[in-house]
Parts: sequence; structure tokens; C-alpha cells
Amino acid sequence: MDGAAVDGAAVDGAATGGAVDPQLLIARAYLSRVSEPACIPVWDLVRRCGPVAAAAAIRDGAVDRDVAAATQARRDSVDPIADLEAAERYGIELVVPESERWPHFAFAALERTGLARAARYRDGDRTHSESGELMPPLALWARGGLDLASLGVRSAGIVGSRAATAYGEHVTAELGYGLATRDVTVVSGGAYGIDAAAHRAALAAGGPTVLVSAGGLDRPYPPGNAALFERVAESGLLLSESPPGCAPQRRRFLTRNRLIAALSTGTVVVEAAARSGAMNTAKHCVGLGRPLMAVPGPVTSPMSSGCHTLLGRDVAPAILVSTSDDVLGVVGGIGEGARPVPDNDPKLAAGDLRVDLDQLDSTARRVFEGLLVRRFARPDEIAARSGVSPLEVIRALPTLDLAGLIETSDAGYRVAARRRPG
Amino acid sequence: MDGAAVDGAAVDGAATGGAVDPQLLIARAYLSRVSEPACIPVWDLVRRCGPVAAAAAIRDGAVDRDVAAATQARRDSVDPIADLEAAERYGIELVVPESERWPHFAFAALERTGLARAARYRDGDRTHSESGELMPPLALWARGGLDLASLGVRSAGIVGSRAATAYGEHVTAELGYGLATRDVTVVSGGAYGIDAAAHRAALAAGGPTVLVSAGGLDRPYPPGNAALFERVAESGLLLSESPPGCAPQRRRFLTRNRLIAALSTGTVVVEAAARSGAMNTAKHCVGLGRPLMAVPGPVTSPMSSGCHTLLGRDVAPAILVSTSDDVLGVVGGIGEGARPVPDNDPKLAAGDLRVDLDQLDSTARRVFEGLLVRRFARPDEIAARSGVSPLEVIRALPTLDLAGLIETSDAGYRVAARRRPG
Repeated sequence: MDGAAVDGAAVDGAATGGAVDPQLLIARAYLSRVSEPACIPVWDLVRRCGPVAAAAAIRDGAVDRDVAAATQARRDSVDPIADLEAAERYGIELVVPESERWPHFAFAALERTGLARAARYRDGDRTHSESGELMPPLALWARGGLDLASLGVRSAGIVGSRAATAYGEHVTAELGYGLATRDVTVVSGGAYGIDAAAHRAALAAGGPTVLVSAGGLDRPYPPGNAALFERVAESGLLLSESPPGCAPQRRRFLTRNRLIAALSTGTVVVEAAARSGAMNTAKHCVGLGRPLMAVPGPVTSPMSSGCHTLLGRDVAPAILVSTSDDVLGVVGGIGEGARPVPDNDPKLAAGDLRVDLDQLDSTARRVFEGLLVRRFARPDEIAARSGVSPLEVIRALPTLDLAGLIETSDAGYRVAARRRPG
Repeated sequence: MDGAAVDGAAVDGAATGGAVDPQLLIARAYLSRVSEPACIPVWDLVRRCGPVAAAAAIRDGAVDRDVAAATQARRDSVDPIADLEAAERYGIELVVPESERWPHFAFAALERTGLARAARYRDGDRTHSESGELMPPLALWARGGLDLASLGVRSAGIVGSRAATAYGEHVTAELGYGLATRDVTVVSGGAYGIDAAAHRAALAAGGPTVLVSAGGLDRPYPPGNAALFERVAESGLLLSESPPGCAPQRRRFLTRNRLIAALSTGTVVVEAAARSGAMNTAKHCVGLGRPLMAVPGPVTSPMSSGCHTLLGRDVAPAILVSTSDDVLGVVGGIGEGARPVPDNDPKLAAGDLRVDLDQLDSTARRVFEGLLVRRFARPDEIAARSGVSPLEVIRALPTLDLAGLIETSDAGYRVAARRRPG
């Protein structure tokens, strides 16, 4: 069975209500380890055939050459049921795109980029085929009760150097505490230095925080932050793209960084040396069209030089932030500092993914009808206007976006130009 | 005699060679004290009638109501010969626009703004009539041998808080020393804190520095910096718009700030509280179309908050600089960071000030012929191409600019669009 043979097959095992079909979970668990992180051909195969058929095809070797090359090393050895059982022992759940918990809203930009890259790949463009960094994850391993689905509406990535200075940790604590008290979810990577200071400040404020780890959630990394991981799991959320048991390898840090950027309305770099993981996260943030912020510091401090580079750029410079109010002005959609988000892939909007209104389900139609024509509205306002819950709005928006029916900016959503009367 | 009666009179007492007619010096000395700083109607009267006739008219009260109002308090009491004698005792010279020492190049933007404001004033617009801040000076009192005429080609204003922190003084010393060793003239105001650190660093490097004082040069202010004033006079240049004996009053600080901005290719704010004189200098820098730079610092330091405000602006944000190399990239015309300078008054370029090539003197014609049509060239290159000295180029450029014959950017000068072939 090659890619073409399974093309057009119905998506199998759709979620029914709150629960997800166990076969689908097992398939996603298999995919999560056999191709980690998802490369373009595997991701595209799953998109076209659905996870159950894709997993079966990979296991049987009935796939095209690209998918085979990406999966042959592990296709026989992965034991998804063992992974799911191990996860359960650690209180870890597998969250899949078919689940109500999946962060469709936060991942919309990642999905859009992924679709565009898959289309280019099918057209023979192999530019990005080596690095799977920007493809959406096939599944997420999660521990903790924090609402994952609405992440990205009001969340701030706070990232920076492991070798932070006292200044950097102080500023991070001020930002993290100030944002968490105003119900902005603080997203970071659980590393020493800035990351840990950000999580701790959010916890101290009794506010929401999400820790995206580079390895399996049963293996907190760095081990010295194991207690912090526990505290985040109790009131916030631990997330990883890697199944239990995976060691935090270098490539996992890089792919993890894109998830921090994707799950955040905007990301703040507090301290970063010229070459650091935080600069990589900053690159993802800009690539996803999200507002990037940076905290200035002494020009005599190498730990601030990366921030100054980001602030001094001629093209897409970071927004200078000094206080949590400044960050709130960007990620909270109020006050100054909000900038329009560039459309990531205009080509795609004109492509083959458009559907018409009558192809939408009734909730999506109601959400569309709740949009304003000219002014951008935020999900809360759209919910009130359309009479559906904010969570339903957040779930419907990516569909409307992919269908080319809406326009997005930092200020929210409105009807796309081509759908406007006159 | 009213304004109209002297309109069109020939400019009297033009400089002959190196020396300036004593009557003209006396007239400028009189004007320098009778209307300090120059207000629009007085400046315009001098421009139209020349300084000797303007001074005589003011002394005789034969002027229009606006000029009379601006000068009546002092017109009988000013003793220009006593001022010039007092200046001589202190080694202070009066430099006038008719002299070869006048910084025509640096003041070109100030002249352009002044002409535009005078034109609006004549049309009845009184918006800026109260504040004379932006009119070009009628004369400068100077002490020291540094070349004043070519200031602005490669000079950097370095300004900041009097209550500087150790961080601010450290960074200033690095910037001032690095720039002065590369022959960039360091321009500042002689105040405590950042200003003094900038002058001292330039002196330590054995490089050029210009101190623009708010009071008479016989009265160093603050008195604690008297030794610094002496050292600047020995190897650099002290400048003031105020005649000897004038106390440094608040309004003189504000008008002084525009001269720092005007004499600098670009200005760096190192540390500044939210409301400070350095922020006023920054405003002048932007108003003159010059590149404004700012040094970031800890967001926890109130002394850096003004810099962060300048860096964070949506419109015309300051360029972030960390090192003297960064500043050199802006004011030295090399490397990155150079930005096009907006034209200050497009209306004026289309106005009545244009002359044609055959109205130019032979040097200006040669300079014009040495310009490139498309690419911006710097004065040194234009000098080499046109076969005249760099100083002659610098003197000719304001004339060509006012005549609408050239275009200006950070990268230099080129033939104006309307004069290009095709």
C-alpha cells in the first residue's frame, strides 16, 4: 500500500463525546514514538489516512519510500500499549487531536504552516524535509489538570538562559507573578535559570503554568527540578511530545521550543546569550506569526546580548517589555503594544482547503455568524454574540481559518475579506 | 522701518576670505544678546536684511510689532563691544554664519526647519511663535581650536542623566573612548553624570570633543566641572549661544539641547529618567531627522526607563546600541544600522527657494557635478570626484540642499530626483 492507495480514505476512529476510541489512542501512541518528532511525510500520511490506517500501514511497511525511511528503524519495536500503561502508572495521559483537550486554537498557526509545508513537499520541494521542527505534533503526553484546549488565548511564554543572572531571575519573577495573578498562563520549559523562575513565580501567585519538557514526563529534566515538575503537575500542566522513558536529547530541546512558542499568545525572552535555546524559541515565535517580546538589560551583560539582538533587528524586531503590564498589553489584547500578526501563508488561503459555509457543522456556522465583518473580536466576545461557549468558539476557529472564512490578528477574528458583503 | 521696508535689501558685510568684517561681528554680537535665543521674527529679519541692517533697525526701534516685542527689553542696554572685549579676555571668539568656521553642514537641517517655520510664520501661523527652540542660532561663542566647520560629518552626541548610575558612567566611558579613538567627535553638554563621563572619555582617548554650554563660557556650569571645561577648551571646543556673563537658566538648557542634536551626526541617550533633559535632546534629534540611539539597561533602573521608552516607540524608535561599534555603524556611515533620514519639510523643497545651476558659485557647481545620480556618496567621496577639498564640499552642500538640487540620507548625498536625467 503506497501513499496514493490510502489517499482519500475516511478518517477512522473519530472521538465520540469526551472519550477517545482506544484503537485511535493506541495508533497515536504508536505514531508518537515511531516518528518523533513527526516528519513531513509521516504527518501528511496521518492527515490523509487518519491515525489508525497510517499506523497500520507503517507497521506493515505498506508506505512510500519517504515514510518508510523515516519509520523503519522503530516500526517493529514500538509497543504502544506498553507506553500507554507506563504513562498511566505516572499519571500521564495521551492527548490526541481527536480529543476535546487538544489545543486546536494554540496550534492553528502550526497546523497552517504544517499544511503548507506538506503541500510543498508533495510538489517535490525537499527544502525542509530534514528538519521536522515545524510540523504539528502527532500527539501530546500530558500530566496535570490545567485546561489545555484554551491555551493560547491568554498565555505567555517566558524563556531564557539556564545560566541566568540575579537580574534575569528577579525580572522573571516579577513578570511571572504579575501575569499569573492576572490569569495569564505562564508557559516555559522547566530548565534551570529563567524557565524555573517563571514557573515558580506563577506557582507562587497561585496562577496557571505549563511546563513543556524535552523528554518523557517520567524523567524530569534537569533532575534537580524534579520537585518543580511535581508542583507544576499538581496545579498546572506538564506536556511532552516524547513518550515516557525518552531521554531529553538535543533535538528534542529544539522541537520542544516550537511547542512553547505555539502554546503561547506571545513569548518573552528575558535573558539569552547570543546563541541559546531561547533564541531558537524566539525564532519559532516569529515563524508562527506571534508577537515576540524581549527584556533589555545591561549592555555589559552577555546574558542580555541575545535580547538586544532581538530588540535591534531591522525586520520584525522584538517588542521591548519591562513589566508584566507591558506583556499583558501584548498577550492580553488590551492597551498598547498589540501588533497585527502577519498571515503565515497567503498561498494556502487561496488553495484547495477552502470549504463553504454549508460544509461546516452547526457550531462552526454559529461561530461564523457571531463574527463581526470589519472589527476584530476576541473569542469571549464572539462566544457572547454567537451564543456558544468560549471553548466551542476556540475549537471552531481553526476550522474556519483553514476554510479561509476568517481573518486573524492580535485583536482577534473577523470575517475574511472575500466573504464580506460588497 | 517695518519688516517689508527692509525686505530684499542686499546682505551687508559679507565675509572676505578668512576674516569677518568687524561691523558684522558687532552686529551679530548685539543680536546674540538682544534676542536670545533667536525667535522667529528676529531670525527672519536677519535672514532678509542681513545682520548689520537688522541690528540697526532693532536698536532704532524701526521694526515690526513682533520684532519689537521680542527685543524691546534689551535693545537699549546691550553693549556688543563690551561683550566682544569680555570674550577676548577669556579667549572666547564670536563665530558667525558669515565666517569660514560656521558649521553650515551640521546646521543644514536646523536652517531648513528654520526657513520652513519662518515661512509659516509669515503666512500667519503662530503655532511655534512662543518657543524659539528650533530656530538656528544667530551666532556662537566659541573657545578652543577644534574644527567647527566640519562638525556633523562624523560626530556623536552622547547625553544622559546628571544622576547617572555606575553602569551608565561605565557604558558612557566605553562609548566615548571607542568613538574618540576612531576620530568621531563626542558632543555633549558638560553636565555632571553622563555628559562629563563622555567628555572625559574622549579626552582620555586624545580624541575630539565639543562641549555645548547653556550659559556664558566664562561661567562654567556646573562650577564643579570647571576643570573639565578647561581641558575641553585646550584640545576640543567649548560652544555657547549665550554671550559671556549669561547665567545658565532653564530655558538656555532647553535651547542648548537642540545645538547638541544639530552638531551631531546622531545622538545616543545612555541613561535618562522618564522626564529629563536628555529626552528633550532626543526629541530635537528626531525633529532634525537625525538618527537617535539609546542604550538599554536594567528594567529595574529608573535611570534607564527613558531609554526604554525611546527604544519601544512604535513610530521612530531609537536604534539600540550596546557598543561604540554600534554607534560607529550609525554615525560613521559604515556597517549596519544606517537608516534613511526622513526629509524634514517636503513642502519647502517645492517652494520658492530653488535656484538653478547657473546661480551657483563655481565651487558649488563643481560639487554638484561630483555627485552621483543614483547612489548616495559621502562628502569625502564627493570631494575626490569633484576635485575640491572636503571642507569646501561640506560648505557647498547646504546651498545645494536648500536649492533643491540634492537628496540627503544617512548614506550621504546624491542628485535630487527632479534633476536626474530621464
